[in-house]
Amino acid sequence: MAIIVLKFGGTSVGSIELVKNAARKIAAFYRQGHKVITIVSAMGHSTDQLVALARKITRSPHQRELDMLLTAGERISMALLSIALHDLGVPAMSFTGSQVGIITDERHSDARILEIKGDRIRQALRQGKVPIIAGFQGVSQGREITTLGRGGSDTTAVACAVAFKARQCRIYTDVDGVYTEDPRVFHNARLVRKITYDEMLELATRGAQVLHPRACAIAARCNMPVQVLSSFSGRPGTTITKGEKMEKPLVRAITHDTRLVMAILESVPRNPRVLSQIITELAHSGVHLRFFFHGISEADRFDLSFILPLEDQAQGFAVLKKIAGRLAAKRLRMKKGIGAVTLVGPGIGSSLEILTKLLDILSQARVHIEAVTTSSISVTCFVERRKLFPAIRRLLAGYNLKRKAAPDGQRLNRKRRQS
Amino acid sequence: MAIIVLKFGGTSVGSIELVKNAARKIAAFYRQGHKVITIVSAMGHSTDQLVALARKITRSPHQRELDMLLTAGERISMALLSIALHDLGVPAMSFTGSQVGIITDERHSDARILEIKGDRIRQALRQGKVPIIAGFQGVSQGREITTLGRGGSDTTAVACAVAFKARQCRIYTDVDGVYTEDPRVFHNARLVRKITYDEMLELATRGAQVLHPRACAIAARCNMPVQVLSSFSGRPGTTITKGEKMEKPLVRAITHDTRLVMAILESVPRNPRVLSQIITELAHSGVHLRFFFHGISEADRFDLSFILPLEDQAQGFAVLKKIAGRLAAKRLRMKKGIGAVTLVGPGIGSSLEILTKLLDILSQARVHIEAVTTSSISVTCFVERRKLFPAIRRLLAGYNLKRKAAPDGQRLNRKRRQS
Repeated sequence: MAIIVLKFGGTSVGSIELVKNAARKIAAFYRQGHKVITIVSAMGHSTDQLVALARKITRSPHQRELDMLLTAGERISMALLSIALHDLGVPAMSFTGSQVGIITDERHSDARILEIKGDRIRQALRQGKVPIIAGFQGVSQGREITTLGRGGSDTTAVACAVAFKARQCRIYTDVDGVYTEDPRVFHNARLVRKITYDEMLELATRGAQVLHPRACAIAARCNMPVQVLSSFSGRPGTTITKGEKMEKPLVRAITHDTRLVMAILESVPRNPRVLSQIITELAHSGVHLRFFFHGISEADRFDLSFILPLEDQAQGFAVLKKIAGRLAAKRLRMKKGIGAVTLVGPGIGSSLEILTKLLDILSQARVHIEAVTTSSISVTCFVERRKLFPAIRRLLAGYNLKRKAAPDGQRLNRKRRQS
Repeated sequence: MAIIVLKFGGTSVGSIELVKNAARKIAAFYRQGHKVITIVSAMGHSTDQLVALARKITRSPHQRELDMLLTAGERISMALLSIALHDLGVPAMSFTGSQVGIITDERHSDARILEIKGDRIRQALRQGKVPIIAGFQGVSQGREITTLGRGGSDTTAVACAVAFKARQCRIYTDVDGVYTEDPRVFHNARLVRKITYDEMLELATRGAQVLHPRACAIAARCNMPVQVLSSFSGRPGTTITKGEKMEKPLVRAITHDTRLVMAILESVPRNPRVLSQIITELAHSGVHLRFFFHGISEADRFDLSFILPLEDQAQGFAVLKKIAGRLAAKRLRMKKGIGAVTLVGPGIGSSLEILTKLLDILSQARVHIEAVTTSSISVTCFVERRKLFPAIRRLLAGYNLKRKAAPDGQRLNRKRRQS
């Protein structure tokens, strides 16, 4: 029988009842004769609670020790899940990232997986056991415990699915899958049944939180089919695969980001090296530049606009302030209240028809567009945040992304970003 | 500089404030130039809370997985303690039992230490680091995570002190040390400043919970000086060493046990093999027989009395009931409400003077003695529980074990038994 990898996020094991619910799902696959490998996150908000404990001691906890602390979270959930499985007569066996041999680099709190040895997992499978693996954690080549950072458990799941040659990776979460927009905000958004890796990656990077971009990127690279589905509803969810190549341009889904700011450096000398210097300096200081663009202000000087995440605002302003002084820029302005809306779908970035319609709808909604960026499968518009949601409502209707049936009480919560 | 091992029990790291308090103590030794190794228990009652979570799933959690679960407790406390030490500028480094190489047998939830490899600890010490070691846990030769059962962290501490050739092992707890009796019950009990391994072992086995008998036994075997002291008061505590050989009989301290029952198997055939069969059967069924004795009832039959811990009452009764049927015993009686009082001190088991005085005091208190057992350093009397405390008060006075000074508000709590 084929190997199947299941992943349960924090909200799917947030209580003892939910742990039992997850165990029943695993048991069902096991009884069907599958070889099942399960990846589990820490229960509910327990990772946040552990971070809060450390922060009660110091504002900047030692990174190695913080990783040691946080890995206790999955240790608890995986052991409880195994206990629940044994109670159902399933021979479960839990393994830490270190026991699995999830080898990472040395970057504490944000490690990257280098290799999955997995000898103990293969041995357990040969013995008919059902391995339960701690998500989010690994061990460095120097034998130090590491954590994988945001999206870590999704990443563990997809990486394990690849390493153990699984037929499929099923990500259980608290939403029914990928929607045409966030269903918590846009109640008539529709579930997307199939999506490609590239589209999912684009959605994930632009704000959708159903599957983490890192996990999605591994799935894409290794062509691992991923199914995102609810651990509560029993619906089939969204399947993420390579997709067909030859598709006519189509808007598959929309995502948005409300937490952006724009910094404008006015009247900077025209010099080809200036821009790369600025971008390098921002990156080194830890600012995640989302987009930049420039306009000409005078013959030999130009304006530079940078769009940054809200959380990098202070750091970004400090770095740009220094640069402004050095370059004798006329002025540095911050513009708050920026949002972004992204359309995702095959071929849409190069479809004049789709782009025209987009600009048309936005102008009808009287939305001022700060900037537009496109890729082969996406178009992103940066706009005033207060105009964002009305605009998205028009776009959902305009591209036929609304649900046809009436709401039926299904769980519509957008997934909390989990470890 | 010599190596010193410190151990902080659960009540000594029961909150973030207490974790910081423990860190300050470690930092002080470090700044004095000591090479400090610290063993830490799980915070407060967190081990009990984890057990309760598992019990919400099933009454008998799978042992391997329960060990995996419980070891999360020390992982949290050791990481927090290390974070607090870094905050004080001390280069702490936490290690799990597995990372230390605390190799145990395969007995989950009650493993025995076979060997401490300790390479990473020696390396850390060479690098000037301050290792923080998870108590209570180890790893089996089959690479499974194990826990050491009751008294596990004390055992880890003393075993590490031996393995790393420490000069001393300091056990920080929530009492000032060993008292002449439990100071929570007997307010005028006196702190014992020095005691021998044998006496401590006798006290610990008979009910005193300051240092676990397993830890005490290792200390005795390897002649490791142990100091038990409060992490709150700053008092010097009790030092446990080999002691002088030639001492005149002296009652050093008293301990008691209130949770006993007696089972009486009446009129059993006189047969030398009967008794060993019964004891073997009880032991195999998990009953911890404390004491047994017999009286003659008829020429060829005799009565057998067994003293058991209260928690083994049901199991003990079931086993003895079966035996009673097989041996055609006349009757099986259970006598509840049994207690034990033990006097401990050098040479007292063979001192006629001390024994006479004991029986004299108990008879003055109108205490009926069910049985007496002696060793070279102890005398234990099994008596009715309701007479136990009045009897102990007379014994404390009779053997001059009361505190001279008035109470001064010191912490007198008897230590909770910790993992």
